[in-house]
Amino acid sequence: MADYLRRGFEEAEFEQRTARAQQIMREMHLDAMLFTTEPNVRYFTGFHTQFWHSPTRPWFVVVPAEGKPIAIIPEIGASGMAGTWIDNIITWPSPQPEDDGITLVAGVLNNTSSRFGRVGATLGIESYLRMPANNFNQLKGMVSRDFVDTSLAIHELRQIKSQAEIEKTREVCRITNAGFAKLPEYARAGMSEREICKQFRIDMLKEGADECPYIIAGSGPDGYDSIIMGPTDRVIDGGDILIIDTGAVRDGYFSDFDRNWAFGYASEQTKAAYRAVYESTTKGFEAARPGATTTDIYNAMWSVLEANGALGNDVGRLGHGLGMELTERPSNTATDNTALKPGMVMTLEPGMVYAPGKSMVHEENIVITEDGAEWLSERAEPELIIID
Amino acid sequence: MADYLRRGFEEAEFEQRTARAQQIMREMHLDAMLFTTEPNVRYFTGFHTQFWHSPTRPWFVVVPAEGKPIAIIPEIGASGMAGTWIDNIITWPSPQPEDDGITLVAGVLNNTSSRFGRVGATLGIESYLRMPANNFNQLKGMVSRDFVDTSLAIHELRQIKSQAEIEKTREVCRITNAGFAKLPEYARAGMSEREICKQFRIDMLKEGADECPYIIAGSGPDGYDSIIMGPTDRVIDGGDILIIDTGAVRDGYFSDFDRNWAFGYASEQTKAAYRAVYESTTKGFEAARPGATTTDIYNAMWSVLEANGALGNDVGRLGHGLGMELTERPSNTATDNTALKPGMVMTLEPGMVYAPGKSMVHEENIVITEDGAEWLSERAEPELIIID
Repeated sequence: MADYLRRGFEEAEFEQRTARAQQIMREMHLDAMLFTTEPNVRYFTGFHTQFWHSPTRPWFVVVPAEGKPIAIIPEIGASGMAGTWIDNIITWPSPQPEDDGITLVAGVLNNTSSRFGRVGATLGIESYLRMPANNFNQLKGMVSRDFVDTSLAIHELRQIKSQAEIEKTREVCRITNAGFAKLPEYARAGMSEREICKQFRIDMLKEGADECPYIIAGSGPDGYDSIIMGPTDRVIDGGDILIIDTGAVRDGYFSDFDRNWAFGYASEQTKAAYRAVYESTTKGFEAARPGATTTDIYNAMWSVLEANGALGNDVGRLGHGLGMELTERPSNTATDNTALKPGMVMTLEPGMVYAPGKSMVHEENIVITEDGAEWLSERAEPELIIID
Repeated sequence: MADYLRRGFEEAEFEQRTARAQQIMREMHLDAMLFTTEPNVRYFTGFHTQFWHSPTRPWFVVVPAEGKPIAIIPEIGASGMAGTWIDNIITWPSPQPEDDGITLVAGVLNNTSSRFGRVGATLGIESYLRMPANNFNQLKGMVSRDFVDTSLAIHELRQIKSQAEIEKTREVCRITNAGFAKLPEYARAGMSEREICKQFRIDMLKEGADECPYIIAGSGPDGYDSIIMGPTDRVIDGGDILIIDTGAVRDGYFSDFDRNWAFGYASEQTKAAYRAVYESTTKGFEAARPGATTTDIYNAMWSVLEANGALGNDVGRLGHGLGMELTERPSNTATDNTALKPGMVMTLEPGMVYAPGKSMVHEENIVITEDGAEWLSERAEPELIIID
């Protein structure tokens, strides 16, 4: 089996992630960091399960200032966690509403070094705690340390991908491209959005996707007005434009890109809008290099859209980070200003309202390299595909 | 199209949900309730999108003491929310880290009636806030009301399903049964867990599932030791036991049940363990009626497992609520004691460790009726199926 198809990671990957987190902890004067969400628990432990779909039980990982992470988890996860690189696994018979792990977590945090008297947790930007808010308050009362927000630092840690992570993303992008490539073979006016998306989903599964958690569709006469709803039972008619945006997953890493098609014919205005978002992607790619920022990407992309009559953009940004989650920090916006670094996996997602009720959105996936950027998705056609 | 296949709900369903929430608010002396998670936002608005896979932006719904819910959401969701029964939709260009909706939410809450000076939020049992913890603290400072935990009351509200909700669950259970029924036609020793699960997933999609977010597998010689990991590339061998547990989704409602198979042969001990969990399910079903409790179900089920040599149970419960989420309140445990009421959709999930490293877990889905319970899943075979 080719290396990039191997599941999971070598132990060295987790050692490096933990070492980088511990470097952050020294810089931020922290004795430990607490994690509660699926991607963060998986990032540090390798614990990979669909069981997070069950919202009942809280899961905790503490990264101490030195040594391996410590898992404090429901008993149901013990044998799974034992298969990871983690040695210290503390369990309780959850669900146990009167004390669902809180005393155990407090004990672990109180036993870590008290050099700084500070513990980190993801309390701020684009983060949440996957535990009852009242339990977190209780925990704060039981731990003799101050809690400090580490969300931005953890976003910055995770947004620099290892080569192994990049290869996983490249593979799921290949799978996604293969799924999109087949669509013109079966999609026809007279089919519903839902029917088309079902075949697309099955094709990606057969091509190697583990799952396709995100497949949305929008369609309408010569344009669509939303890119986050659907698919619906709306039947495609001649003259419709269809967009499908997808996030497929293989081994826990997402692709996130879209494609547009016209059925039978499209107006010159819509074809021009497609050319504009394609050209915007080109300019975004050219701007994407170490030393530049997400705002440089945004400016390069938005100037093309503006020159082509954009009335606005209701997505709020022109692309974002990508990895274990469908969307990650940073964002390509006018004010984000995040410095681009090698290893950052990003989407370029130009979108504009080009007529009332009509949007055109396009998206590709790239990785920042030492001297520029590299495509992870195979670029869309430069002209809108018209399915006869 | 048959009624039970129609997507979404009539407006009357949302009016009733809102009225029931407002009754709770009167009883709890609340002026409004704030919601932040996908199932709660969907429950009160009907807003149904896969976009929640993007963790970037917060979404808010406020249910006031009178009148319709109010949506305070990212601009990207405006056209989607406009398709629901909600009239008052307030948006901002998210992501906007410096103020991601907080001032808007505070404004709405401050404008609600101040009769009680109290606002509800899901702060407690089996809940979390899908927003940065620091932003919630900021919000509390901006709202001139006390925040009160309403998580248990909202669990209790949602756990009584309407007939329309029950019919959606029944349909996805039918789809799941059809997927399981096909498995012996193709599953063979020599295939990996992952290959078998892929075909099972595709079969459920073809049968009518929108997606299958939860498909786990465990296998091993004459038994398995985990029911929350996998599927892996482990190849099934003669004499193996395979369990697949799944949660398929149609129109936003989950099934959640499992099936077990032996390949070639199984030991008498393992066959007996299968009979024990089957019998435990029978006893749980008989105990499931209005007036009884989740603990009555637990006791009826556990007594069978104990009598059949159970060494323990590392799942932590013998079933749970089911609906918009894979697992919901309540839990069938020795101490849960939730009174059963008509309309509660539950799983019966007997599980036991019957030998070191060997678990046997079984699961069916039921709904509590006026005078007992009804199966939503078609029961498994009373004897372990052996695939030759």
